Amino acid sequence: MSAQVKQLWEEVRNLSLGNTGAVERLPSPPSPLQFLRDFVSQNKPCLISAATLHWPASTLWTSDDSHLLNALSSSSVSVHLTPTGAADSLTPHPSSPSRLCFATAHVESMPFPLALSTVYSSDRDEKFVCYAQQQNDCFRSEYSGISGDCESDIPWASEALGCLPDAVNLWIGNHQSETSFHKDHYENLYAVVSGEKHFLLLPPTDVHRMYIRNYPTAQYKYVKETSKFTLDLVEEPKIQVPWCSVNPYPSPDNMEKERAKFPLFFNGPKPFEVTVKAGEILYLPSMWFHHVRQSPDRLGRTIAINYWYDMQFDIKYAYFNFVRSIPLRLCDQANELSLDQMCDPEDDLSDSNCEDE
Amino acid sequence: MSAQVKQLWEEVRNLSLGNTGAVERLPSPPSPLQFLRDFVSQNKPCLISAATLHWPASTLWTSDDSHLLNALSSSSVSVHLTPTGAADSLTPHPSSPSRLCFATAHVESMPFPLALSTVYSSDRDEKFVCYAQQQNDCFRSEYSGISGDCESDIPWASEALGCLPDAVNLWIGNHQSETSFHKDHYENLYAVVSGEKHFLLLPPTDVHRMYIRNYPTAQYKYVKETSKFTLDLVEEPKIQVPWCSVNPYPSPDNMEKERAKFPLFFNGPKPFEVTVKAGEILYLPSMWFHHVRQSPDRLGRTIAINYWYDMQFDIKYAYFNFVRSIPLRLCDQANELSLDQMCDPEDDLSDSNCEDE
Repeated sequence: MSAQVKQLWEEVRNLSLGNTGAVERLPSPPSPLQFLRDFVSQNKPCLISAATLHWPASTLWTSDDSHLLNALSSSSVSVHLTPTGAADSLTPHPSSPSRLCFATAHVESMPFPLALSTVYSSDRDEKFVCYAQQQNDCFRSEYSGISGDCESDIPWASEALGCLPDAVNLWIGNHQSETSFHKDHYENLYAVVSGEKHFLLLPPTDVHRMYIRNYPTAQYKYVKETSKFTLDLVEEPKIQVPWCSVNPYPSPDNMEKERAKFPLFFNGPKPFEVTVKAGEILYLPSMWFHHVRQSPDRLGRTIAINYWYDMQFDIKYAYFNFVRSIPLRLCDQANELSLDQMCDPEDDLSDSNCEDE
Repeated sequence: MSAQVKQLWEEVRNLSLGNTGAVERLPSPPSPLQFLRDFVSQNKPCLISAATLHWPASTLWTSDDSHLLNALSSSSVSVHLTPTGAADSLTPHPSSPSRLCFATAHVESMPFPLALSTVYSSDRDEKFVCYAQQQNDCFRSEYSGISGDCESDIPWASEALGCLPDAVNLWIGNHQSETSFHKDHYENLYAVVSGEKHFLLLPPTDVHRMYIRNYPTAQYKYVKETSKFTLDLVEEPKIQVPWCSVNPYPSPDNMEKERAKFPLFFNGPKPFEVTVKAGEILYLPSMWFHHVRQSPDRLGRTIAINYWYDMQFDIKYAYFNFVRSIPLRLCDQANELSLDQMCDPEDDLSDSNCEDE
């Protein structure tokens, strides 16, 4: 294993993130200065309790569906339909099942009451899962009928970051919806209103452990008449999507095979784990890899709203790009050298041995 | 030249630091939030004008020496004596002149009036330079007689950083004193009270360009009776000091030879240059390489005071250690590979070719 990169994973945990796999918890929202200094500046996550209890949504959206159905009775919203609930993830290639492709959901617009009932009804369906979501600022567009029920931004975050959110997205799903490992170029404040969201998190330093590779893209298409999905390769344009290859929850039968394929993930430090409950906000720092599962509320759905703020493309981003540009097999060779050894200081100064640096 | 590291130098400048070699200027002190967000968090320097004009020192220390001599009449202060003014820098090895050693100054304590006059009198001396300085919080100890003349901390910085300074150091020198390239594990607020300080700055990303190598240590010893310096190797303990090998101001005769020895420095992006004038404060971010020269005031001395705040050992520090651990010759090989090419996604999934990652 590459010593330098392994050292990086260890050092960021020893210095800053901790080694327990736990995310730091705050009992209440921090001041802007504290948030910036202790978390954003350090690219470090935290879970904030008692963060959204003052939102009308925390009561209006949780006791039953009446308010939602009333306020959105004539709204159309986007739903993502997939056979198994794995949206935007790797799945066997339609024409070469021993290979994988990156499959996106069937996306369509439907009246909100139908979207909600489809979320419910697909909860026990083994071949069809509906997830009401669209990562395009949908809360402020499709869901404008309920936009007054939550804050339009997170004030202490806006003040800290010096800007308002670039996008606010609403997510309504059942227990089957799962989001595979990926990262976003945003500072993310992720609030759960009802139910629970379960995150696995890994810092950008761990990029090699995600085995990011290029995959051909395919799209699910749901055919109502047959109640079946097709998976169609995207040929125009024929693009490859770089995606994390690791599934952190392989079946017991597959565990040994997956560990052998992705040793840096399974044999390295365990991901950070955090469950975000109703009323809580997770600060999910920019460029952090995250995998998401959810547990529904007593009604059977999970409702969350996330605030994407523009990230600073600064020295941390430049450093990350450098790390990911170093292939591991070369880091192994680096293990045998050090900067000090690049040029023996005992050499005569006229010796030009070191000029090949 | 290594493509990955060169890309890092370019990217941090394109994204954050700029390509002009200029340091961002603020007309007055920033708010704590702005300072943290726009500079500290991004590890980016700035020059703040009108920062210390309210200090008594800005008038009491500048018109003449009467106040200083009065308030410090019975104080003893540390002085650093060297033959050429190059304190803590590389110089020919005492027993092997074609090699270099890391030479530290002769340090002694003397009454302040004598220290000040020695700074003056050594100004035109070609073989003896006196620099009143000690990087051990001397302002709050040796110079406690004048500690009321400046703020004991920089309030907007203390609030931003969430702590008070770890050390406050005073510097009184003449035009001959020069500090060679080095970095400090501190966030540094560097205030000039009288005269000017000229900084060359390079970000931590540029570590390879500094050709940090190990050198044996030696110490100057000034023999009053002969008015001569000896340079004595330090044998107990016999330690090697890692130090930047580059002199950014070679003599014209040496320029080509130095460029050939240190091509990454001389052929890469020019250092950031900033002159700090009386009343101004330079935010010198943690881990930035800096080289310092000075121009005296009309009386012949330069007086500065710097505030060292503890730095956060966070993800930026971990990233830096990773960068410096990658020897350049391996980065050259990396140029021929990319993460995507580490494993051909067209491979059969049962192919274990990629497991050597």
